Amino acid sequence: MNGAESLVHTLLASGIETCFSNPGTSEMHFVAALDRIPGMRCVLGLFEGVVTGCADGYARMADRPAATLLHCGPGLANGLANLHNARRAMTPIVNIVGDQATYHRPLDAPLTADTEGFARPVSAWVRTAGSAATVGADAAAAVQAARLEPGQIATLVLPADTAWDEGGVVAEALAVPPAPQAAPATVTEVARMLRRGEPAMLLLGGKALRAPALALAHRIAAATGARLLAQQSNGRIARGQGRVPIERVPYPVDQALSVLAGTRLLVLVGSRAPVGFFAYPGKPGRMTPPDCVVQVLARPEHDQEAALAALAEALGAGEVPLPEAGPRPEAVRSGAITPEAVGRTLAALMPEQAVIADESVTYLRGSFAATHAAPPHDWLQVTGGAIGGGMPIATGAAVGAPGRRVINLQADGSAMYTLQALWTQARERLDVTTIIFSNRKYAILLSELAAVGANPGRTALDMLDLSNPDLEWPLLAHGMGVEAARAESMEQFCDLLTRSFTRPGPFLIELVV
Amino acid sequence: MNGAESLVHTLLASGIETCFSNPGTSEMHFVAALDRIPGMRCVLGLFEGVVTGCADGYARMADRPAATLLHCGPGLANGLANLHNARRAMTPIVNIVGDQATYHRPLDAPLTADTEGFARPVSAWVRTAGSAATVGADAAAAVQAARLEPGQIATLVLPADTAWDEGGVVAEALAVPPAPQAAPATVTEVARMLRRGEPAMLLLGGKALRAPALALAHRIAAATGARLLAQQSNGRIARGQGRVPIERVPYPVDQALSVLAGTRLLVLVGSRAPVGFFAYPGKPGRMTPPDCVVQVLARPEHDQEAALAALAEALGAGEVPLPEAGPRPEAVRSGAITPEAVGRTLAALMPEQAVIADESVTYLRGSFAATHAAPPHDWLQVTGGAIGGGMPIATGAAVGAPGRRVINLQADGSAMYTLQALWTQARERLDVTTIIFSNRKYAILLSELAAVGANPGRTALDMLDLSNPDLEWPLLAHGMGVEAARAESMEQFCDLLTRSFTRPGPFLIELVV
Repeated sequence: MNGAESLVHTLLASGIETCFSNPGTSEMHFVAALDRIPGMRCVLGLFEGVVTGCADGYARMADRPAATLLHCGPGLANGLANLHNARRAMTPIVNIVGDQATYHRPLDAPLTADTEGFARPVSAWVRTAGSAATVGADAAAAVQAARLEPGQIATLVLPADTAWDEGGVVAEALAVPPAPQAAPATVTEVARMLRRGEPAMLLLGGKALRAPALALAHRIAAATGARLLAQQSNGRIARGQGRVPIERVPYPVDQALSVLAGTRLLVLVGSRAPVGFFAYPGKPGRMTPPDCVVQVLARPEHDQEAALAALAEALGAGEVPLPEAGPRPEAVRSGAITPEAVGRTLAALMPEQAVIADESVTYLRGSFAATHAAPPHDWLQVTGGAIGGGMPIATGAAVGAPGRRVINLQADGSAMYTLQALWTQARERLDVTTIIFSNRKYAILLSELAAVGANPGRTALDMLDLSNPDLEWPLLAHGMGVEAARAESMEQFCDLLTRSFTRPGPFLIELVV
Repeated sequence: MNGAESLVHTLLASGIETCFSNPGTSEMHFVAALDRIPGMRCVLGLFEGVVTGCADGYARMADRPAATLLHCGPGLANGLANLHNARRAMTPIVNIVGDQATYHRPLDAPLTADTEGFARPVSAWVRTAGSAATVGADAAAAVQAARLEPGQIATLVLPADTAWDEGGVVAEALAVPPAPQAAPATVTEVARMLRRGEPAMLLLGGKALRAPALALAHRIAAATGARLLAQQSNGRIARGQGRVPIERVPYPVDQALSVLAGTRLLVLVGSRAPVGFFAYPGKPGRMTPPDCVVQVLARPEHDQEAALAALAEALGAGEVPLPEAGPRPEAVRSGAITPEAVGRTLAALMPEQAVIADESVTYLRGSFAATHAAPPHDWLQVTGGAIGGGMPIATGAAVGAPGRRVINLQADGSAMYTLQALWTQARERLDVTTIIFSNRKYAILLSELAAVGANPGRTALDMLDLSNPDLEWPLLAHGMGVEAARAESMEQFCDLLTRSFTRPGPFLIELVV
């Protein structure tokens, strides 16, 4: 058995069943091993940013890591931005990065690069395999590291000779410790603080945003008067009918400050204290009022649901009815295309158990509430602010949640970073409906430029404007084998959305806004 | 004057006139400064890999650095692969990477990343600006570092407050030392070694591949019997009528070994001793025979032309006629589409002073000689093996060499990594003819897989095959505003090629091979 074969067997034994890949020459023995050994679903991406974003979306839905297969330092580099997003989402991923043979590396051939150096800023665990005999053990350690709560990125660099040499040894899966529990003393302390009745807020993140944890948080809120809020960006939020509706910390600093104003106690549950996405001259960086006490109930690696259950018990917070979501909205079939109309229409038409991959950036920011009364669904955000997460996350989510329709809410400027994901959707016949909000500009930057007080001239506008030439999204989609059409009215949008939900496979709607 | 304004003034004073940009929020003050201060041409790319590849292509043709404008760590990360290529081409580039304000960084907002960590593997010079008062001086130092012979990558991280704070100071351009001369004793020694008459070869790289240096090398070869060869991958080679035709070290290891077999003396002129692009089991890593002496005449940072002139003089190697290139080939207007037919047709139809940006990978490998008798032209290669260099390099070369037609020889698989470059070509109305060699597979990997002895099954083939669905290149190009058509015969190819050369602006030909 060569090293590559021991690697594939070990990954399978450790529960890795999907490999998003963009292989190169140095990975040919790994490819050959994947070919010979059944059990691994291999999904090809035509760009590494697609591959890593897919792995992020997959694990968010499947709750287990996928592997990626990347080619040398520059191939990994192309995937770093979406690994950054995955790191911020606390997504488990196992990167396998093929590289120069150990004895060839000192010759510094053209593709030789500092692969570990590229990996380190996004990875909690980095190792370069040393020999075929140990690569199996390395792989088991990588999977273990990735699965450590709340989820981490592990990168295993695979020199070509450690793949092709004989002497591979399959390693057994390594035990992953369960999520640690919040300390009982902490729970008691938080209960005591909440009982004081000062204006309080539970800020939820990570697995505290799954349905059971949200229901517990709602009981605590009902018993104490504390408000509930989610972090600004979250890997996955359970939403829709039967779930506790929750708003997020707003992106604009002034709105965030306003939402948090008056809060005297902020309890963190799998979240971090809110800070501005960027600094702005004369505005604070922390969104909490100066006199607000920030108290951790459970860190991201803790068992959020158990912590909330313990807190509810400590508070004697019993079962309460869920807040009434109200009737499901009706689709808006006429009138102007507005964020509110689009939100209501999504709520009206989305199928049960849809998965929303949201990189709408500016367009839908104000209409999150419009989908509270939609059927149950999960909402995935681009968590690290690295542009180009949306389409790959949607693609991977569709692989990780078969049978569920994925709806990718996608800004046009951001879509261009990783549009190659459409091809993977077509090849794998994934049930993804992409809605491109086509405003033909970097709208977020125009507002940011105005915020710095600039009166933009030609040079600035040219750097923020995506027209001249216009991007023709239906052509781009057709060019990659995805059916697509343009909607210039709410009526067309409703028709196309319904059509996309009633047929299998991907579909793209360019919504001109 | 704020820091951003001092930065723009300093870049202009240091001779930077072009900025390839993909800005974000933290760069808005820099964008506003570019807007207010005339003199910088700003070229927008819709993905950072386009931006950095453009800067590479630009500097190869303009012989001076451009700036890039990138957004935070992940924005830089998206540009790393083409910075890797640029590093291998020894291209001068000044990266300006906007980032979190200095005082905001400790709050670890979602987009915060190890920006310097991402920069270091590709940069010879990395600095994070500390204040508005010093950012001008930092910029002057960055340009100086980039211009240091033979050309380096300098990355200046620009925290937002160092851009928006008042107190900016414009810095004067810093002197760049000229390329050092090869030591006279080295020249004498190389002359002595060459006079022994053993089988010798001059291996040329860097600026030794410009026309005057090539002519000197040819005189030396004529006087000593030494052979001439270029490195496998080169930033720029002067070719065509009136230039010395030169072959490159072949990519396949067996061919490279064969070309170098029998060589007893290898003289390096701006080049490095040839090694395999990858290691292969049982094959050597160094392409030189074991008994071959490798002697440096001039390192990449040396003045190659002066070193060759000194060597020619030491050898008494006088003027000799250039080798006869033979008649210009005629276009092949019928018969099968073959690499040879395509090469001859290119030679027949390309305009004077064309610039070839070559990421054809496998397809044209064997037909380099077919263009020796073309009109004078420059040939740019993807030097670091990072896929996705071709289209951006072509785009930047067109900006850096206005009035010259750029011909991008482009493999389809590689094109998908950075296809967004087409939009920049359309927006800037650049004279780029893209020829997509559409074989709908990762052809290089199929041959590599065969080389490892694997008999590929479905899983492996699926990872190396780009059909299902087919990429429709004319649609992709139209979607980004570039005129395009498909050629399925040599006759169509000739017609489309001629048409693209006779009208301004970009054109894409999908050549089905």
